[in-house]
Amino acid sequence: MAEDDSGKLRAISVAEFFEKNRHLLGFDNPIRALLTSVKEAVDNSLDACEGADVLPEIFVQIQELGATRYKVIVEDNGPGLPKDQIAPAFGKLLYGSKFVTFGGKQSRGQQGIGISAAALYCQLTTGRPVRIISKTKKGEAQVIELKINVKSNEPEIITHTTIDWTKEHGTRVELEMEAKYTEKKASVLEYMKETAIVNPHASFVYIDPEGQKIDFPRVTKEMPRKPESIKPHPYGVELGILERMLKETASRTLKSFLTTEFDKVGSGTADEILKNAGIDPKISPKFVTIEQTDKLVKAMHGTKIMAPSTVGLVPIGADVFKKSLESEYNLEFAYAVTRPPSVYRGNPFVIEAAIGYGGELPKDEGVKLVRFANRVPLLYKQGDCALTKATLSVDWKNYGLSQSGSNMPGGPAIILIHVASVWAPFTSESKEAVANYDEIIKEAKLALQECGRQLQLFVGKKFKREIAAKKKEMFKNYSIELAVALSDLTGKKKDEIEKDLLKVAEEMLATGAIEGEPEAAKEEKKPKRKLGAFKDSGDE
Amino acid sequence: MAEDDSGKLRAISVAEFFEKNRHLLGFDNPIRALLTSVKEAVDNSLDACEGADVLPEIFVQIQELGATRYKVIVEDNGPGLPKDQIAPAFGKLLYGSKFVTFGGKQSRGQQGIGISAAALYCQLTTGRPVRIISKTKKGEAQVIELKINVKSNEPEIITHTTIDWTKEHGTRVELEMEAKYTEKKASVLEYMKETAIVNPHASFVYIDPEGQKIDFPRVTKEMPRKPESIKPHPYGVELGILERMLKETASRTLKSFLTTEFDKVGSGTADEILKNAGIDPKISPKFVTIEQTDKLVKAMHGTKIMAPSTVGLVPIGADVFKKSLESEYNLEFAYAVTRPPSVYRGNPFVIEAAIGYGGELPKDEGVKLVRFANRVPLLYKQGDCALTKATLSVDWKNYGLSQSGSNMPGGPAIILIHVASVWAPFTSESKEAVANYDEIIKEAKLALQECGRQLQLFVGKKFKREIAAKKKEMFKNYSIELAVALSDLTGKKKDEIEKDLLKVAEEMLATGAIEGEPEAAKEEKKPKRKLGAFKDSGDE
Repeated sequence: MAEDDSGKLRAISVAEFFEKNRHLLGFDNPIRALLTSVKEAVDNSLDACEGADVLPEIFVQIQELGATRYKVIVEDNGPGLPKDQIAPAFGKLLYGSKFVTFGGKQSRGQQGIGISAAALYCQLTTGRPVRIISKTKKGEAQVIELKINVKSNEPEIITHTTIDWTKEHGTRVELEMEAKYTEKKASVLEYMKETAIVNPHASFVYIDPEGQKIDFPRVTKEMPRKPESIKPHPYGVELGILERMLKETASRTLKSFLTTEFDKVGSGTADEILKNAGIDPKISPKFVTIEQTDKLVKAMHGTKIMAPSTVGLVPIGADVFKKSLESEYNLEFAYAVTRPPSVYRGNPFVIEAAIGYGGELPKDEGVKLVRFANRVPLLYKQGDCALTKATLSVDWKNYGLSQSGSNMPGGPAIILIHVASVWAPFTSESKEAVANYDEIIKEAKLALQECGRQLQLFVGKKFKREIAAKKKEMFKNYSIELAVALSDLTGKKKDEIEKDLLKVAEEMLATGAIEGEPEAAKEEKKPKRKLGAFKDSGDE
Repeated sequence: MAEDDSGKLRAISVAEFFEKNRHLLGFDNPIRALLTSVKEAVDNSLDACEGADVLPEIFVQIQELGATRYKVIVEDNGPGLPKDQIAPAFGKLLYGSKFVTFGGKQSRGQQGIGISAAALYCQLTTGRPVRIISKTKKGEAQVIELKINVKSNEPEIITHTTIDWTKEHGTRVELEMEAKYTEKKASVLEYMKETAIVNPHASFVYIDPEGQKIDFPRVTKEMPRKPESIKPHPYGVELGILERMLKETASRTLKSFLTTEFDKVGSGTADEILKNAGIDPKISPKFVTIEQTDKLVKAMHGTKIMAPSTVGLVPIGADVFKKSLESEYNLEFAYAVTRPPSVYRGNPFVIEAAIGYGGELPKDEGVKLVRFANRVPLLYKQGDCALTKATLSVDWKNYGLSQSGSNMPGGPAIILIHVASVWAPFTSESKEAVANYDEIIKEAKLALQECGRQLQLFVGKKFKREIAAKKKEMFKNYSIELAVALSDLTGKKKDEIEKDLLKVAEEMLATGAIEGEPEAAKEEKKPKRKLGAFKDSGDE
């Protein structure tokens, strides 16, 4: 590396970097930019409401301003932002409250980058500031228009006023951008629908560019349990992080450092770890050498320690998940399951899966797979996602769905998978695919297999019912002809005989006496006429 | 967005962000981390040497320090770094000389993030500092060991000394990390080989973990032309960037702003743009309103302007590319082409392609596709890459290769594609796949088709030669028997007759008189015995 003739070495601001590399944050094209902006704003709104124990009421509108220009409006009833926090929250990349190196709790946004990136995209493509209205319970509604100074990654306030706002508290953001609106796959409407499914406690109103209003009322008034922050679990710690924690801790001894700073490390476990590392429990964390840190991290990974706490996780819950799915789709059958918590690299996670069958779902298309992470729908990169891999690893033919090879099974069905984690491992910052961890794939597969078994029971019963109905229909047609013949023979009235015959059939069906194999299966057993020029005399 | 109970809103340093999201920079697993580190260091070394007009001599070594621990050493004969620039260059993310928002020139590294990210990965996994030796022509060799303060994204120097170094000038970096070494696909050796092919002016020495030394001598002593910085072309400018340029310019009038700050905008073009925008050429850039900026950007995109300068681009050149390919592979045929420059979104680019056939290449495998951008091999995400898409869009059956559907064609062949651009559009910061721009795909396809046509000529001739050789062999065998019979009839010596017959055959072959269709084609025409129990009398 060297200075070259184009300029001196200099620091590049993170805003400059992401302005140029905006594809990394999901702003690669006008269609996706629109969707990403909505997603980032709605994520923030939901997180804010839940953080303040408010049942979310979210308003989303897309206004068409020109052939390629749209305004995105997202408004919530959250707690609002303190006056001096509004500008950096929307006008500074990498500014937030939820970023922790390790440990923490489940949330949608994590890095304090998304909404500012949307603001950056707006000013890049339209030169317009982002407009924010935010009101806390105590204060006035602040109206701020701001741009991001790209060179310094600092907000520049263009206008700052206050208004009377009918809302008691909440935040509204308006983003004007070059964009493209689509109603195909990965559309804003689809995103709203999927978001409503995994956020049954929230109500959404969506107004599309045509002015159509679509309501997504809440399915439950019960707030999801508030996740608690968890300490890092020893299994996930890395050497460099441990080194930093040792430097920063207020603990006087290494043993108290372990019991204070880590999840599931009591006195006994701490002794065990330190014994395995061969280090004196009484030494000060400040004096641990790099060689000792190396031994310590190995001992932390190698000692048997209880699985991490799951208080940082808030799954949707199988009952609510099922109810929510049923409220969005007209189905014949639905089932949902929440798996027990599991762990990857020291991070606890929970997998939930739901399956819907029949009803309005298309029969002649592949199953629709809908993926979620921390209650956020994943709309792109299905092929790269661990949840897709898990779905394809299930043998769906065992569960009553058609499937050729290891392709997506055939409909009419919809499959939903949700991974809830303190740290959801996405393959990219635009949060579209879950990284391939074996533990995650395994749990997702188990959840899907349970859904499959329930589906199989339903499809099996449905199949039997269909066969019985067919038999009854056949028997009925036969009865009409039989009744004519019996009427001639006995002199009894044809209608009465027919009625009697049908009654007999009903009884036989009820007891299962005429339940049999389906027509299709029978047909296969019928000896087939052989193909060829020669006549098969046995078939004559 | 709101404060939540886990902490106040705060700024997150870019080092913290990338420590946690290191997969974005190519450090997702131990195999890739090793390769990415080598790649980043070698990219820097090559850029440094070329920037200082030095023929690069690069030394790369991987030392095994433990089951999962390796040291990467990369040393160059570049100009070295000034004393005070060493620490930030290796210990601060987003610090470099090559980042420009728009315009600029072709280089390998662009963002000043790669080598510092490698240093960050080292300290995270091993707690060890990165060690750098750097010497400029004038100064002493500086030896610096440093770590990155993750919270501040600033280098922390651990030791700083000077040594006697036999080298006149150069830089050496040593990185100790948790990693995994593989000899499979996407290995360091493969990377070295591919890097040598597209950098024929550089010599490389690589020592693998077993201590084996592999030399990659240079193929040419000619330095590639030094790329010149180019101004941004009007076709690629975006509103937000234009707005910033208007604010920052020293030009007094809008017209002189256009002619000064942009590529290919002379007085006439500037007048035309301003006429189309309906703006007075004499107004000061400082007083242009956002509405006018919007009109201006539309006029810049809509006015006919000459294609961008290509002085910022340095293609390898078809001759050298071919020679370089032949020096790495034992081939029967090679061909390379450099396309004329083209443009995507205002960025000029050049596509080069090369094809190798036969020799040591495997016959029973698919063609090996090797992708490069700005002389850097792209080792991952082949499926996502525009260059792959272009390759699969060619109908290789027309050019003498087997191909089923739109799969990769069958060997024995190797295909290389290089895109050189002032701003190569990667799909991610780890630089592994070129984004799907239509213009890039089209150019790559044209380059491949030219390679294909040349290949087809060679394969066609080769096929004819093989047929001729077969005929000759057949004729020879026949001649031996014929000679015996003729010897009996004529009393002439058998050997002499045989010699005469062969001479006749040679002549006939030379004139093409016995050139015919291949045996395989003939065989297909032979009436086949029908399958079945009945005898076909006509075949008896």
